[in-house]
Amino acid sequence: MKYGYFDDVNREYVIQTPKTPYPWINYLGGEDFFGLISNTAGGYCFYKDARFRRLTRYRYNNIPLDNGGRYFYIKDKEGYYSPTWMPVKKDLDRYECRHGMGYTKITGMKDHLETEILYMVPLGESIEIHRVKLKNTDRVVKEFTLFSFIEFCLWNAYDDMTNYQRTYSIGAVEIDNGTIYHKTDYRERRNHYSFYGVNHPVDGFDTDRDAFLGQFNGLHEPEAVIEGKSKNSVASGWNPIASHRIEIKLLPGEEKELIFILGYIENPVEEKWCAKGIINKKRAERLLEKYNSSDAVHHAFLALKEHWSQLLSKFIVQSHDEKLDRMVNIWNPYQCMTTFNMSRSASYFETGIGRGMGFRDSNQDLLGFVHQIPEKARERILDIAATQFEDGSAYHQYQPLTKKGNHEIGSGFNDDPLWLILAAIAYIKETGDFDILDAQVPYNCDPNNMGSLLEHLEKSFDYTLNNLGPHGLPLIGRADWNDCLNLNCFSVNPDESFQTCENQKGRRAESIFIAGMFVYIGKEFAGLYKRIGKEDLARRVLHEAEKMKDNVEKYGYDQEWFLRAYDFYGDKIGSAENEEGKIFIEPQGFCVMAGIGIDNGKAQMALDAVDKYLNTSYGLVLQHPAYSEYKLNLGEISSYPPGYKENAGIFCHNNPWIMIAETLLGRGDKAFEYYRKIAPAYLEEISEVHRLEPYVYAQMIAGKDALRHGEAKNSWLTGTAAWNYEAITKWILGVRPDYDGLIIDPCIPKDWDHINIKRIYRGVEYNISIKNPEGVSKGVKKVTVDHKEQTGNFIECLDEASVRNIEVIMG
Amino acid sequence: MKYGYFDDVNREYVIQTPKTPYPWINYLGGEDFFGLISNTAGGYCFYKDARFRRLTRYRYNNIPLDNGGRYFYIKDKEGYYSPTWMPVKKDLDRYECRHGMGYTKITGMKDHLETEILYMVPLGESIEIHRVKLKNTDRVVKEFTLFSFIEFCLWNAYDDMTNYQRTYSIGAVEIDNGTIYHKTDYRERRNHYSFYGVNHPVDGFDTDRDAFLGQFNGLHEPEAVIEGKSKNSVASGWNPIASHRIEIKLLPGEEKELIFILGYIENPVEEKWCAKGIINKKRAERLLEKYNSSDAVHHAFLALKEHWSQLLSKFIVQSHDEKLDRMVNIWNPYQCMTTFNMSRSASYFETGIGRGMGFRDSNQDLLGFVHQIPEKARERILDIAATQFEDGSAYHQYQPLTKKGNHEIGSGFNDDPLWLILAAIAYIKETGDFDILDAQVPYNCDPNNMGSLLEHLEKSFDYTLNNLGPHGLPLIGRADWNDCLNLNCFSVNPDESFQTCENQKGRRAESIFIAGMFVYIGKEFAGLYKRIGKEDLARRVLHEAEKMKDNVEKYGYDQEWFLRAYDFYGDKIGSAENEEGKIFIEPQGFCVMAGIGIDNGKAQMALDAVDKYLNTSYGLVLQHPAYSEYKLNLGEISSYPPGYKENAGIFCHNNPWIMIAETLLGRGDKAFEYYRKIAPAYLEEISEVHRLEPYVYAQMIAGKDALRHGEAKNSWLTGTAAWNYEAITKWILGVRPDYDGLIIDPCIPKDWDHINIKRIYRGVEYNISIKNPEGVSKGVKKVTVDHKEQTGNFIECLDEASVRNIEVIMG
Repeated sequence: MKYGYFDDVNREYVIQTPKTPYPWINYLGGEDFFGLISNTAGGYCFYKDARFRRLTRYRYNNIPLDNGGRYFYIKDKEGYYSPTWMPVKKDLDRYECRHGMGYTKITGMKDHLETEILYMVPLGESIEIHRVKLKNTDRVVKEFTLFSFIEFCLWNAYDDMTNYQRTYSIGAVEIDNGTIYHKTDYRERRNHYSFYGVNHPVDGFDTDRDAFLGQFNGLHEPEAVIEGKSKNSVASGWNPIASHRIEIKLLPGEEKELIFILGYIENPVEEKWCAKGIINKKRAERLLEKYNSSDAVHHAFLALKEHWSQLLSKFIVQSHDEKLDRMVNIWNPYQCMTTFNMSRSASYFETGIGRGMGFRDSNQDLLGFVHQIPEKARERILDIAATQFEDGSAYHQYQPLTKKGNHEIGSGFNDDPLWLILAAIAYIKETGDFDILDAQVPYNCDPNNMGSLLEHLEKSFDYTLNNLGPHGLPLIGRADWNDCLNLNCFSVNPDESFQTCENQKGRRAESIFIAGMFVYIGKEFAGLYKRIGKEDLARRVLHEAEKMKDNVEKYGYDQEWFLRAYDFYGDKIGSAENEEGKIFIEPQGFCVMAGIGIDNGKAQMALDAVDKYLNTSYGLVLQHPAYSEYKLNLGEISSYPPGYKENAGIFCHNNPWIMIAETLLGRGDKAFEYYRKIAPAYLEEISEVHRLEPYVYAQMIAGKDALRHGEAKNSWLTGTAAWNYEAITKWILGVRPDYDGLIIDPCIPKDWDHINIKRIYRGVEYNISIKNPEGVSKGVKKVTVDHKEQTGNFIECLDEASVRNIEVIMG
Repeated sequence: MKYGYFDDVNREYVIQTPKTPYPWINYLGGEDFFGLISNTAGGYCFYKDARFRRLTRYRYNNIPLDNGGRYFYIKDKEGYYSPTWMPVKKDLDRYECRHGMGYTKITGMKDHLETEILYMVPLGESIEIHRVKLKNTDRVVKEFTLFSFIEFCLWNAYDDMTNYQRTYSIGAVEIDNGTIYHKTDYRERRNHYSFYGVNHPVDGFDTDRDAFLGQFNGLHEPEAVIEGKSKNSVASGWNPIASHRIEIKLLPGEEKELIFILGYIENPVEEKWCAKGIINKKRAERLLEKYNSSDAVHHAFLALKEHWSQLLSKFIVQSHDEKLDRMVNIWNPYQCMTTFNMSRSASYFETGIGRGMGFRDSNQDLLGFVHQIPEKARERILDIAATQFEDGSAYHQYQPLTKKGNHEIGSGFNDDPLWLILAAIAYIKETGDFDILDAQVPYNCDPNNMGSLLEHLEKSFDYTLNNLGPHGLPLIGRADWNDCLNLNCFSVNPDESFQTCENQKGRRAESIFIAGMFVYIGKEFAGLYKRIGKEDLARRVLHEAEKMKDNVEKYGYDQEWFLRAYDFYGDKIGSAENEEGKIFIEPQGFCVMAGIGIDNGKAQMALDAVDKYLNTSYGLVLQHPAYSEYKLNLGEISSYPPGYKENAGIFCHNNPWIMIAETLLGRGDKAFEYYRKIAPAYLEEISEVHRLEPYVYAQMIAGKDALRHGEAKNSWLTGTAAWNYEAITKWILGVRPDYDGLIIDPCIPKDWDHINIKRIYRGVEYNISIKNPEGVSKGVKKVTVDHKEQTGNFIECLDEASVRNIEVIMG
């Protein structure tokens, strides 16, 4: 069942009912200011950091779930309703929500009054615009009252929901010329305030929640709205809100546009006040003026559209499959940009108060956005590297505001360092910016202890070598990519974290997954050394990768697939010997990606086993069979009910590793089957099963052991986005940047006969036409560049042209 | 304006409208299992620890505020409503809520159907009973459906509201014979489950929130209730709830009683399961059976009442003033017991996930309950002492589950150690148990490093001596009792805590408040040494106290009052020299209590200044004038808006210090004026101003600079309870335990002519009749014990009698 449709031309998903199976959301803003907004206008916004600079409140897991946002109420003689359906939930005659690139537009029509609200963050600004268009489509005059409503968060979102002995006493506002200023704590250490204004005279306002709603009323029944008049309340402590009241009269056919601005302002300390206790509002007033006309907002909207056109112009596929096109051209890169902005911080599943930037997460996310915003990718790489320790290990997370490592979670996730190499190489291959390798980067954020980025990468590589176990395989530490496989944390206390209670100090538990990564990344690293003329180092690295490959073949392969790990006791995990958890997905992916077993059939056997044991209608489960009991020696993975999360859920992040592995075997049909099964656009028709947005990936889909197989959880902020983008663009469509040009090596379903790709790479537009006259999956028979045939499928990057036309004939 | 009345005979506060100015709550349970319940059945319950063993969910600061609890719905042909008003909010024909000692009874009548719900935790059990009495007072037969509803918290209340990527996947239940078992995480490290059952066959049930409510519905409009039928849903992940449906038919006049049990069970690991995946329910079944009859519940209720009669029998006053009597005899000791149970953890202002037990808090709380439960007071003293360091300093907080010091907050609040002496002495004076001084107690919870409690007390005393500043006054450290006076933490970063950012390492900032405490407690400590025959040590301690007294007189007195502190730069705080914060309340209280300046008029001047500058209609503000700007050298105190919290709010905790000080000057009218101004029973008539419960103290009442002067915040969990109990019983009514008997030394308003007090002390009942024929405030002229006149007002404790009659003539 569908709840809307894709409007590919406008790059929008159009939702046609407020009653989606779960709130379907979008993100506003892409620089310093961000908003989350659902299809019924729920959500919140913040400046840079969702914990420390939260502008508006949001209650996670509320009843009903999505209750709180930027709401409007329309009140007339007949009663009142919300043009975004929530929170009043009165039926609308027409409803439509368009989630676009960085904006959301919700239309609500009732009794011939059409309301269209555009929510957006203009480029370069720290404000949300709420443009309300009201149109009387009736034949009679309409008189009604419009109320706005937002609830301020008292900045620190964690304190805001826990520290009531403080927060109930500090709330403070000013009201000036119809604009409501939120200045809680501004008198002390905060030099920032927020404001909510409108480009129209107001007939009333409220800033105290109880006054506006009434003490016992929900958001669906504000007293002020029911009575049709504001209380003009001035908040003093308790819960400050902002609500404007505007009386409106529309002649038949008349249209009116109101522009509400919700903004964040930082003042220099010396300019905080205009009089004692009165905040300096100049910066806010300037913004209110700048966007006080329809024209100004319209231009800002066009600029935002154009910005996204640019961002999305780097890779455009045109195929026979519109679902593929919309994933690759629009929604997958859009989601990748969101993971760049948010890491795992703020979504409808991540509350914005918990995790910082993950070392591993951010390096992987980078694969998905480096071609869109290479300069920011560069900055991100250097930020991440700066949290690395001198021995090559790394803080597992760091805080976005301070960019410092997070002590509470600490280090010891032994895959972390290797991801940095992968990210750095992806960046260099995209940009050709080898200079980044010479950039001086601190260790553990200590400016007195610096090393070049290249040195950081060497230390990353050596960290694995310095931490090998009894089989010469990498020690797993607290956990590798699978945070829930905790082989050194035997936890019996439910009040402690599975990851931080590391209590088995032996150096025995080994990860075949990290071994695969090491080989894969080692080969890449050797290539980099070679390219920069360090042949000796290249040989050394390659030699170590080869040694590791041998160890994997010797100790890391079961009968038909790669093992997952050795546990604390040296026993196998992910082996046919085990009763449960016989086969895991991760090592099958990365070991084959690393080329292990391709020449001797082991790789194919492993991937066939994946198909046989892990494949379901909704994607590949993480392992099989699910653990039915808690295992002290395995940790959190066995704590989940069967079919959920790492315990045999479809953990989408690792599915693309299998897709990539399949392309290395040339099995394009399999690769694409796996792609299609979890790509959201392909799931649109089963939205009642999948439940989450059909335009973005979710972290997990319930596996075959779960009661609701196919139901997704945790959409938006997941490494799934980057890796699927990697799989589809570089390995299935097969357009891969290399140090000095593009490799074109598709691996597609046999029945695809033609694909066109536009790729902008280092300033040059490559128009690539791929033809598959013989119905093969893989193999390039002929390549012409600007009508000149060349040998091989490597397109060297020469800078004399701005457009190149490439024709690729498969066969 | 009143919203109810005191029923003193039943020891209940009777609320007559659901629309109280704020949720007015009560506590259920007194041992391991606790519930918070509002007058409309909102709230939640937990086992031992409100963070780690939360049974049911509660959303703080929800909209409307108090939305979530143990709810019932009644549905008939006409519609549906809640007999506790919330959450449906349909008007009832009659409503009454009786908050009693450890139970709450809510009556709701609609259309001649009377519903009375008794909520209680029986003694010795970890269950809540919800006894629902239904009575048809109509002349026709009534047929209707009763729905129950609670929402399970997934145990860890913090994870429950932040970690949705886990919590949405783990929810699990079993339904067996009408009982709903909540077993989330039981398959792994948890050996506990909860259950919700009823002593009646059920006609349907729900365990999945969305199924019961409908995805878009609030608690006021459950789909199952609207449709009149349960969905018989089985939760798998997401949000497990428990709801029963029971069809009921009542003849005219017929009454029916249903007993719902919400319980917590811990199973030994080896008895967790009765079959694979099926929890062992024996313990729950035993409890369901034990309380399946009206008789059983009735007896449990009577036992609870009797338990409280016993607890409250230790001090009973009978005066001309019923408000005084109900405070002293019922509500103040009841609140003291709650602060014993909860410390500052779980109330409608404290979320239960934050603070542990405070070192300073718990020592002070003890003053209020030591006479009720001396054996638990003993245990508490030893627990607290065990978190002390060997140098006498102390963790500021410790965790109730582990009883270990809290590293995050750490140490350095320099008043902390001294409170331990006060608590230990109060305990010994109540019980005569000098043996406690020999109890071996660890330092910093290290069993290999022990010392006697007396040694701990010595170290507490010496800690102050070892930390003196330039004027020989105690260094303040991070803060003293006033957590918000942060003289060594110059904070400009709004994202850090004012207390933990200690960044000025000088040893200059001194506290005159700690100096006063030191003298007060030093004298007491000397008394203890003397009593146990250690005259040398007594002399040493007294000598140090005298030296400190001199230093206070020399450097700690301004022109008319005691200074508050010297700041980091050595400048005065709380001086007439200052523009704001000229006079603080705390040192006036404790220095006079210590006897400083009583002999030379300085004390009287100081208290007169308190009256002149700090006294308001609603109590004494903390300081004057309020800080109008943030002061880097003062910290959090200046961050609050004027009139709130420490910035010139009426911080009730310190008001009784002034009451006690006034009694030392013999000014009974003043002492009682201050008592009356903040004692909740006296504020009942102005509940619309005070807003919080008229039966318990709040931490703060907004001061004269605030917009809503007189409005209270943060009721229940405050040291205010213990100190007011101390002030009224020991200093105003003047019955004070000493090491070997009772001192009777009232200080009362001149127009009181007669008071009777029953005091049970060390097993003896003292019936004390105090007469004031000459209308004095202080002074005892004649004392007779069992009709024999004696010299002096000290009643020696002799153990031959079980009852003694004391007559005291003032004059």
